[in-house]
Amino acid sequence: MSLNSTNEIDIVKAISSKINDVDFENLSFGSTFTDHMLVCDFKEGHWQKPIIKPYEPFMIDPSAKVFHYGQAIFEGMKAYKGENNSVWLFRPEENLIRFNKSAVRMAMPEVPGSIFIDGLKTILDIERDWVKKGLGNTLYIRPFMIAVGSGVIAQPSTQYRFMIILSPAKSYYSGEVKVIIAEHYSRAANGGIGAAKAAGNYSAQFYPQKLAQEKGFQQIIWTDDATHTKLEEAGTMNVFFRINDTLYTAPTSERILDGVTRKSLIDLAKREGINVDVRSVLVDELIAAAKDGSLKEIFGAGTAAVVSPIVGFQYQGTYYELPKIENSIAMQLKDKLTKIQYKLAEDTFGWTVEV
Amino acid sequence: MSLNSTNEIDIVKAISSKINDVDFENLSFGSTFTDHMLVCDFKEGHWQKPIIKPYEPFMIDPSAKVFHYGQAIFEGMKAYKGENNSVWLFRPEENLIRFNKSAVRMAMPEVPGSIFIDGLKTILDIERDWVKKGLGNTLYIRPFMIAVGSGVIAQPSTQYRFMIILSPAKSYYSGEVKVIIAEHYSRAANGGIGAAKAAGNYSAQFYPQKLAQEKGFQQIIWTDDATHTKLEEAGTMNVFFRINDTLYTAPTSERILDGVTRKSLIDLAKREGINVDVRSVLVDELIAAAKDGSLKEIFGAGTAAVVSPIVGFQYQGTYYELPKIENSIAMQLKDKLTKIQYKLAEDTFGWTVEV
Repeated sequence: MSLNSTNEIDIVKAISSKINDVDFENLSFGSTFTDHMLVCDFKEGHWQKPIIKPYEPFMIDPSAKVFHYGQAIFEGMKAYKGENNSVWLFRPEENLIRFNKSAVRMAMPEVPGSIFIDGLKTILDIERDWVKKGLGNTLYIRPFMIAVGSGVIAQPSTQYRFMIILSPAKSYYSGEVKVIIAEHYSRAANGGIGAAKAAGNYSAQFYPQKLAQEKGFQQIIWTDDATHTKLEEAGTMNVFFRINDTLYTAPTSERILDGVTRKSLIDLAKREGINVDVRSVLVDELIAAAKDGSLKEIFGAGTAAVVSPIVGFQYQGTYYELPKIENSIAMQLKDKLTKIQYKLAEDTFGWTVEV
Repeated sequence: MSLNSTNEIDIVKAISSKINDVDFENLSFGSTFTDHMLVCDFKEGHWQKPIIKPYEPFMIDPSAKVFHYGQAIFEGMKAYKGENNSVWLFRPEENLIRFNKSAVRMAMPEVPGSIFIDGLKTILDIERDWVKKGLGNTLYIRPFMIAVGSGVIAQPSTQYRFMIILSPAKSYYSGEVKVIIAEHYSRAANGGIGAAKAAGNYSAQFYPQKLAQEKGFQQIIWTDDATHTKLEEAGTMNVFFRINDTLYTAPTSERILDGVTRKSLIDLAKREGINVDVRSVLVDELIAAAKDGSLKEIFGAGTAAVVSPIVGFQYQGTYYELPKIENSIAMQLKDKLTKIQYKLAEDTFGWTVEV
């Protein structure tokens, strides 16, 4: 039974909506899903016709390669409600490009824009009521791809499933974030998959993060695995340091994710006349700046939290507290970025795309 | 409907067996599965009662954490047929120990031996007819655990599924193996998850391996990611080098898997009076040994292939062919190890365990 299908996408509508059962004021991030999901299978060398259908569990073989060899990638995006019930995406082409870079690195097939972008717009149009008005309200978007081919031999799958699921979210507030600088554990290898949004990169962080949390820290600032001297990422976010009035962030590399929020903040900061220096910051520099008072701010940047200010960090057993800054650059940039995303400020960059 | 259940394990037998449909002379590795699987769920902080039931696909939520954050680990083991229809395992406690080390590193719950080992023995007893007699015939065993809890937030799951699936196999012959020494890509980071049998470690290798295959090489010898000067693993196997009459293999580390075949070969070699030196071999040493003729053998060691001799390697564009050795140490050790596994030689180490 296919209703309202386009030429490119089959659509099977849910018989009833769950939307009235959802308390939109009390959402736990990433745990509530909308009525529909997009599913598109890859087999015999080709992407099949996508289908949008009711969100539900699906059947999979115990020997599916995603379970054994971890062929799985994803993106994180958001939809925003504008005036007149309009729905907006933020730089979706950047997510498509990065998704396909991840696909190549994980030996998975690339997903064409006609499936990724058009599929996204079609399902968002159907789920328009799930995107709530008001700053901080978003519909979090999770496009992902998994290897569903069966067989316990360590070779790339020949069958894949691309899906888009959607989860309504309030603004992501993580409380006061104290971080610990990684002295032993690492996130990524040179020549590894750190630049890919591959599933395995995330679970690899859970144990070190648990150890950090047991010591009273919410996150880890990752350093390069070879020397632990270069500051690279904060948890699952890119990281920025403000020393005096210059913002520093590491260049993207094989070890560092090319974050859409990161690159948007760089452009915004430059437009605002803020000095931005894209280079690796050394742990030693950070300690020196903390000691002489020139270190003003540290913040993470990512889709979920947008900007996540850090109040202090620990390194080699010493805790360094950051000054409390009125009108911080972190909060200025977050404000400017979110206003663009919600169509409350002029989008001079052309970043926003209407569904 | 539960039949023949023990106190500890529920058993639901398949109505009929697929065994007569299987061509045991023409098995593709890891693609045929037996009639039953073991399933054991972890929820609310506890392992539930395991069940052995017909092998079949299962339902899972699209937001299951295994798909998004890659919390997934596994082991590879084999069962062997002895005299009088007896079935034998090889050092299963080693796999249990390593599985639980992987679990800790990936922030997953450890699986008790009463589930892992007793479950394995119970399902193998049921699938006894799938273990065929004759050197080279095995039943490949794949215990694995995946995060089945739902939610697209990068945190460890609270729900997991442990499973054992079984696949009949002929001896694994990969043809002539030429390898390329990694000069750019890497398998593992310092402080990373290379020592864990985590799913994400395997898919990370697929793309570099594809590039190697396009150049005519079947495998990659991985080097350390920081300097690419130390030889670490061969594809998904540990690697041994014979220079003159000494065997060298890298010590296990955070980057190198503690292989059961590796450690068994070391013990066997020592018993046979072969010099074994467990230390990192440098690429430069290997090149020098290849040039002066002291490099006699290179071979991979792992459960699937046991021993996989390498005929030559490429480094910085130059191909080095290994001498053809009669009565190679690789083949001597493989012969001795498999005879112990099949109960055709005395097991002075106490490695074999009857089901």
